[in-house]
Amino acid sequence: MSDFDPTQPGYDTQAIIEKDKAHHVHPWQVFDVFRDEGALPIVKGEGSYIFDSEGRKYFDAVGGLWCNNIGLGRKEMAEAIAAQAYQLSYASPFVDLTNIPAAELAAKLASLAPATLNHVFFTCGGSTAVDTAFRMIHYYQNCRGKHAKKHIISRINSYHGTTYASMSIGGKPGDHPPEFDFISDTIHHLSYPNYYRCAAEGMSESEFVDTLVQEFEDKIEELGGADNVAAFFAEPIMGAGGVIVAPEGYLKRMHAVCKANDILYVSDEVVTAFGRLGHWFASEDEFGIVPDMITSAKGLTSGYQPLGALLFSDEIWDVLNAENSGRCFAHGFTYSGHPVACAAALKNIEIMEREQLLENVKEVGPYFEQQLKTLEDLPIVGQVRGRKFMVCVEYVADKKTKALFPEELDIGKRVSNNADELGLITRAIVHLNVMSPPLTMNKDEVDFIVATLRQAIEATIAELRDEGHFQG
Amino acid sequence: MSDFDPTQPGYDTQAIIEKDKAHHVHPWQVFDVFRDEGALPIVKGEGSYIFDSEGRKYFDAVGGLWCNNIGLGRKEMAEAIAAQAYQLSYASPFVDLTNIPAAELAAKLASLAPATLNHVFFTCGGSTAVDTAFRMIHYYQNCRGKHAKKHIISRINSYHGTTYASMSIGGKPGDHPPEFDFISDTIHHLSYPNYYRCAAEGMSESEFVDTLVQEFEDKIEELGGADNVAAFFAEPIMGAGGVIVAPEGYLKRMHAVCKANDILYVSDEVVTAFGRLGHWFASEDEFGIVPDMITSAKGLTSGYQPLGALLFSDEIWDVLNAENSGRCFAHGFTYSGHPVACAAALKNIEIMEREQLLENVKEVGPYFEQQLKTLEDLPIVGQVRGRKFMVCVEYVADKKTKALFPEELDIGKRVSNNADELGLITRAIVHLNVMSPPLTMNKDEVDFIVATLRQAIEATIAELRDEGHFQG
Repeated sequence: MSDFDPTQPGYDTQAIIEKDKAHHVHPWQVFDVFRDEGALPIVKGEGSYIFDSEGRKYFDAVGGLWCNNIGLGRKEMAEAIAAQAYQLSYASPFVDLTNIPAAELAAKLASLAPATLNHVFFTCGGSTAVDTAFRMIHYYQNCRGKHAKKHIISRINSYHGTTYASMSIGGKPGDHPPEFDFISDTIHHLSYPNYYRCAAEGMSESEFVDTLVQEFEDKIEELGGADNVAAFFAEPIMGAGGVIVAPEGYLKRMHAVCKANDILYVSDEVVTAFGRLGHWFASEDEFGIVPDMITSAKGLTSGYQPLGALLFSDEIWDVLNAENSGRCFAHGFTYSGHPVACAAALKNIEIMEREQLLENVKEVGPYFEQQLKTLEDLPIVGQVRGRKFMVCVEYVADKKTKALFPEELDIGKRVSNNADELGLITRAIVHLNVMSPPLTMNKDEVDFIVATLRQAIEATIAELRDEGHFQG
Repeated sequence: MSDFDPTQPGYDTQAIIEKDKAHHVHPWQVFDVFRDEGALPIVKGEGSYIFDSEGRKYFDAVGGLWCNNIGLGRKEMAEAIAAQAYQLSYASPFVDLTNIPAAELAAKLASLAPATLNHVFFTCGGSTAVDTAFRMIHYYQNCRGKHAKKHIISRINSYHGTTYASMSIGGKPGDHPPEFDFISDTIHHLSYPNYYRCAAEGMSESEFVDTLVQEFEDKIEELGGADNVAAFFAEPIMGAGGVIVAPEGYLKRMHAVCKANDILYVSDEVVTAFGRLGHWFASEDEFGIVPDMITSAKGLTSGYQPLGALLFSDEIWDVLNAENSGRCFAHGFTYSGHPVACAAALKNIEIMEREQLLENVKEVGPYFEQQLKTLEDLPIVGQVRGRKFMVCVEYVADKKTKALFPEELDIGKRVSNNADELGLITRAIVHLNVMSPPLTMNKDEVDFIVATLRQAIEATIAELRDEGHFQG
């Protein structure tokens, strides 16, 4: 591993962009924009910093895509990955073969997970963990003879992955454009717990929660009762749907409805696990609920390797594993339990433990929330929200009415473009800027993010005023 | 990367097995068997050889799971992976960011793929490549205003992956047990082109092909005509469905039906690409057809890293990329275009080119077919079939009637267990032993495989006779 000088990268940026444009189709590519502008090549990562092919340096407050938990460019990660790739780069996980990193990682995850979530099915990322949960729910309910328990309930604005099944479970309207098809007969979306936008005038948080719980109970009723409802999917904090932290008590009460109705509760912790909220898993430690299944990925390897995991309870396992059933679990990926990916996850967890990164999130997280909240004095900042290392800024044209800017103004993108110029990467999602920085972030870095974002927002306000889009 | 002595591994095998049993759920796990026996830990790979935790050495004629194309334990692969993990372990591929290995690999794949298949969408493996194809088919047909073109046609015994959508496209009866649910309203399965088992008495190969083509045309008619049919999925040679090489002309004629009916032809080359049949892609070079989409994975990185790719044509791209559509391709994985996985694929392809592994397959492949064919003199070998480095032996209780042994005798597993004892790994699929060795295999290794398999089959025949299961 030779050292590479990112300030003198020596790439032909234009040639790379042209090659990429001609052949590489990107997730969430906006065809009309991409056709003209192409994509920015990133060539180097060091801790929280990334460098583009022109040597420009950015603080990546997005942490890749909610995944760069320990920071980029860790030599010991590269070494652990190389050692495993050299010793055993692949081993089939099918039927009756295994490998040591997969066995060790499964045991480690079981020890970190809440309650009886002792069983691990490895996948290649979050989408496939959710897709596997979906299929395991069918398997579990059919094994129990509950053949009518088919309906899945999730929430509007939830994000659960990109396979046909997982994208159908997700409920972001922007991710359900008319060009794509979805499963609609057995998947249903409840309102999302956004008190800022969705609570009726004068409604208290607890009254708002009452309405959401009632809606869930009504939906079960509407679907013919609990005998027809298989599972409920929820992120502890909605991620791509806008970093929605539900009002106190919401998750516990939704969980209680599941328990009272024999409905499996699937906690999608692809974003929230592995330290983002200061815990290995957030469901129980941050929110006091013990789900039946947890889906995870991202922070599991800090993005160094593609890997996902579905964890599930002894109670589910006991149904699948009933004696003399003759059953085979006809599901799985060539790369389930990939030894290199599992070795990376083990080293990643070891680093988090050794450097006490969960403790850092618990210490720095509240400061991040508090300092970012100061941006609410700006005239276009409607709300700053989130928890610890998972936060977001929402822009509005009118703070009082909460009216949004027209979508074509692409306000989140305007601010993030201005932030890019100042060396700060944030993620634009329509009216939002989302951040999920590496867990190593210290208070000085928080100060940098907040000051830089303030400057980017102020520059954006000036532009909007110049263009006559904002008078405030 | 330190050297590890696989003959003195120093592992506590029983402890690993217990940990694995308690926490690691395996693909295609047979619960009743796994509960007692657990899984065999593999700890080291060198070329075509793997070593278990007791230091036993095996020639892995399965090549992992059809994926170990260049051989295990290549130091330069480990070094390329480590270098990329150190320089840039992750970069978001979303919207307007890219990384150099992803851009370079997309361009390289476009240069290797047939005709106008110039566009690449990266996924995490074969299942997600097929799931992405399924979703892109919806997108493409909806963009064209062909909203009724919804039906997907594939074949019985095909294997296309494990997500809900891809497993529904697949048609292996054993993979569709009653515990799982499947998409059945828009996915349909034709007969599979197994001349040995499915052709009527006295029917010639070309008559058999006639019936299969007719069945396809009838199915289109039955579905209300071509306006309702979106796509046809087919592996050039069926893999997990029993290494079925279709009779001459079958693929070309099925392809012609697609072309005549504006039906997309998706060639699932997860197994057949990257050298297994002596070509980068087999569709055109081996079978003379140019599909609209190709799905790939496995040999793309030789299993060193989880990676899949969907390649598709300019014609599809032009529909997606229509000017001023305002469209966004709201689909993709956190790990799409993962820089480390793409760097591994580039190095893998470089090694295949440098060592002329495709040429080796073309030279040694026919010898492998020919030598393996000699096993047909054994009384329980019904058919030896396959092409080049993708072969299979089918066992029968009666060669004349082609009657199979009772499933509970698990004949494929019996033979493979006996082969294990002799240091040869083959893959048992019910009545079959399947092999897909590394592309480095030479003629001496062919001789070893054939001699060893003969010995294992003979030992199995002796057992069957002793137990009264076979009199022949």
